[in-house]
Amino acid sequence: MGVSELMVATCVQGVIFSLFAAQPVLVIGFTGPLMVFEEAFFQFCKSNGFEYIVGRVWVGMWLIVIVVVIVAVEGSFLVRFISRFTQEIFSILISLIFIYETFAKLIRIFKAHPLILNYEHLNTNITYHPDERAYPNTALLSMCLMFGCFFIALYLRGFKTSTFLPGPIRRMIGDFGVPIAIFFMIAVDISISDAYTQKLVVPKGLTVSNTSARGWIISPFGEKKPFPVWMMFACAVPALLVFILIFLESQITTLIVSKPERKMVKGSGFHLDLLLLVFLGGVASIFGVPWLSAATVRSVTHANALTVMTKGPRPQIQRVLEQRVSGILVAVMVGVSILMEPILKMIPMTALFGIFLYMGITSLSGIQLWDRILLLITPKKHHPPVPFVTRVPTMRMHLYTLIQVICLVILWAVKSSTFSLALPFVLILTIPLRMFMTGHVFTIMEMKCLDADDANVKFDDEDD
Amino acid sequence: MGVSELMVATCVQGVIFSLFAAQPVLVIGFTGPLMVFEEAFFQFCKSNGFEYIVGRVWVGMWLIVIVVVIVAVEGSFLVRFISRFTQEIFSILISLIFIYETFAKLIRIFKAHPLILNYEHLNTNITYHPDERAYPNTALLSMCLMFGCFFIALYLRGFKTSTFLPGPIRRMIGDFGVPIAIFFMIAVDISISDAYTQKLVVPKGLTVSNTSARGWIISPFGEKKPFPVWMMFACAVPALLVFILIFLESQITTLIVSKPERKMVKGSGFHLDLLLLVFLGGVASIFGVPWLSAATVRSVTHANALTVMTKGPRPQIQRVLEQRVSGILVAVMVGVSILMEPILKMIPMTALFGIFLYMGITSLSGIQLWDRILLLITPKKHHPPVPFVTRVPTMRMHLYTLIQVICLVILWAVKSSTFSLALPFVLILTIPLRMFMTGHVFTIMEMKCLDADDANVKFDDEDD
Repeated sequence: MGVSELMVATCVQGVIFSLFAAQPVLVIGFTGPLMVFEEAFFQFCKSNGFEYIVGRVWVGMWLIVIVVVIVAVEGSFLVRFISRFTQEIFSILISLIFIYETFAKLIRIFKAHPLILNYEHLNTNITYHPDERAYPNTALLSMCLMFGCFFIALYLRGFKTSTFLPGPIRRMIGDFGVPIAIFFMIAVDISISDAYTQKLVVPKGLTVSNTSARGWIISPFGEKKPFPVWMMFACAVPALLVFILIFLESQITTLIVSKPERKMVKGSGFHLDLLLLVFLGGVASIFGVPWLSAATVRSVTHANALTVMTKGPRPQIQRVLEQRVSGILVAVMVGVSILMEPILKMIPMTALFGIFLYMGITSLSGIQLWDRILLLITPKKHHPPVPFVTRVPTMRMHLYTLIQVICLVILWAVKSSTFSLALPFVLILTIPLRMFMTGHVFTIMEMKCLDADDANVKFDDEDD
Repeated sequence: MGVSELMVATCVQGVIFSLFAAQPVLVIGFTGPLMVFEEAFFQFCKSNGFEYIVGRVWVGMWLIVIVVVIVAVEGSFLVRFISRFTQEIFSILISLIFIYETFAKLIRIFKAHPLILNYEHLNTNITYHPDERAYPNTALLSMCLMFGCFFIALYLRGFKTSTFLPGPIRRMIGDFGVPIAIFFMIAVDISISDAYTQKLVVPKGLTVSNTSARGWIISPFGEKKPFPVWMMFACAVPALLVFILIFLESQITTLIVSKPERKMVKGSGFHLDLLLLVFLGGVASIFGVPWLSAATVRSVTHANALTVMTKGPRPQIQRVLEQRVSGILVAVMVGVSILMEPILKMIPMTALFGIFLYMGITSLSGIQLWDRILLLITPKKHHPPVPFVTRVPTMRMHLYTLIQVICLVILWAVKSSTFSLALPFVLILTIPLRMFMTGHVFTIMEMKCLDADDANVKFDDEDD
């Protein structure tokens, strides 16, 4: 699957989802865990001689079966077991993957274009394909574009709450911080004409990425060779994995987006969203386009952008502009951008890495686990007056934080190992861990403060 | 004159000054305006066939004559006319020169090592002298080192007032922010072995920079050819210029360092400091080493470092550690560093540019004019409750700021033009300008608020 398919999928599924979903603030897209699965499944199919793209059709079929069963038995009640403990670990994991990926890509550029004094000896024997040649200045320029983009976006975000310029202009600059940053980087990149930087690759028009290998519709019985019948049933196992991934990611994203601090008026419909999302994914696999899930970082960014803060020195959340228009527009824009190839191919890739880094880092703030990790290195007198600080002894709060960090490290190790497919199972294991901890390691009262859905916990004992 | 002479001069004069000066918090050094003068005087001597270094001896002689006369008639009463109006313009000018110089040097590196794809064609015809060859990656790496150093130093400065880590550790990291930043940049620079960056040039041992041209003592009657007698008297004119430069820079620096907000206990002795400084300069010129002046940015940095702030969320100045030890140590370290050449030559030049940028930008904050320039783009409701805001109509305050900015622009234009020698005269012209403005453009009351020595103005009319 190529960029073309991904963009078509994001556009079509995005429009449908925004129109019919119970929680249209969610942004759907192709996420890290799904990519890990697709890569692992591709390797598995290749080494066993199956057609990967046909296997995906059957996985999609089973996905629909599974989701119908789960919804029929009201399976989303399971979501109640996913408490803040698991949510926080998952959100930090996603943010860390975001941040890690940008640095990994930057390091790859540094390896491809090393900092050496003489570039000629590298290039004498090979053909001059622009992607293979080591260029001078490319690595450092990429780094400058990435961090330049990151810092400008970060600065303009802070600018929004500063005191300069009249309010409306300041808010506009703050809201359009990311496009302004990208625009600056394009200008810098164009002004430096004689240095090579990797550009955004956008397909030219609406075609499949590899026209010789496949069409827009995939035959479920094999494209080039027949697909073994037993594999059609065996595909239920990877389907279960994909389902768990989509289930966890979508439900956790829904929980994060609609957490009580945000004061959203509309409720969420777990079952409807899940049914819609997995159904779209199942159909998508027939057309050979990727299945999508609610993208945590993007959804949180979307929700933050729609959040109206109160004015004044200590801004509070006032309300969230809940509507379906912005989601549809985002999806349509993704589709239209296929046709905007001449403009988009001017964007240097590394400027986008800077934006990914910005999204990853800004989505860290607001996660309570992250706040508590920072409290680990904060003296006690500076701790904020919130329930999980004031009602829990400090050392026990730190213990709770450390347990979560250890879970995070284990998940990261699983993600990086060859067992990366098992990631959702390991994530689910945090639920029994939390249940075991309640009562055994921490008192029920302490867990109530640390693992509360709401930032402002209601204390029953205060009524006594 | 070379680096060697400058370092010897800074060391010896610094030790003597720190021992005997009335205001030992001042740091003396070679400053921008003096460098502008030396360059202009060098060009003048060269084009008229005089020996520059001999001319300097006579300028030095006249300097001593002038300072004795001025001190004898208590000439420093003139300093009372240098109000905040002139001080602020001068301090911003000095900070801007600092900031401008770093960017000018960076641009020079970019010109010397342009960002091109093929570096071989540049290097085929010339001899391979490392300073003349255009290297790949050098320009961008220099930029990264400069901004890396700048942002680390700036971040660690902010870190000092954050809430992380226990207080003593946090303050230590904050105080040693600049060395930590330089150390990081050295590590980065060493780890990138195969790219060229300009290193700090330190003379090897104690010799004059150009042994063939001169010794350590300059004959006042000409080194290689006789010095014309009429020029011996004519040197009184450049001497007057140098005197005005040293007078203005030292007095203004003294005023800035010992302004009432700082709550310093010891008073300042304008006459003693001036006599000492100019006398040292006059003697220095016999040895062919540069005369020095109180360096504004360095003195303010020094005073800030010695300032003890009260703890708490809104730190206030508590007291200043007034002593002579730190000044002597700084001067001795400068001298010792001649012998530390093997270590110092590892420091990349551009990391130091980052520190200069940091010093220039941090010394901007705290200058009232800078605060008022920022108020130009701040909506009125966010203005702070200080006398120059509350007791003066906003538009009139902005008018006052704009007049100062125009003065600054004129001064900058003079500095950059061929009349740069006239800079001190133009600066002095701001004094009659302010006198004219009082009563004609602004009321005496308004000027009292805008041009107050103290941040907290005493209002006589409030007693009525």
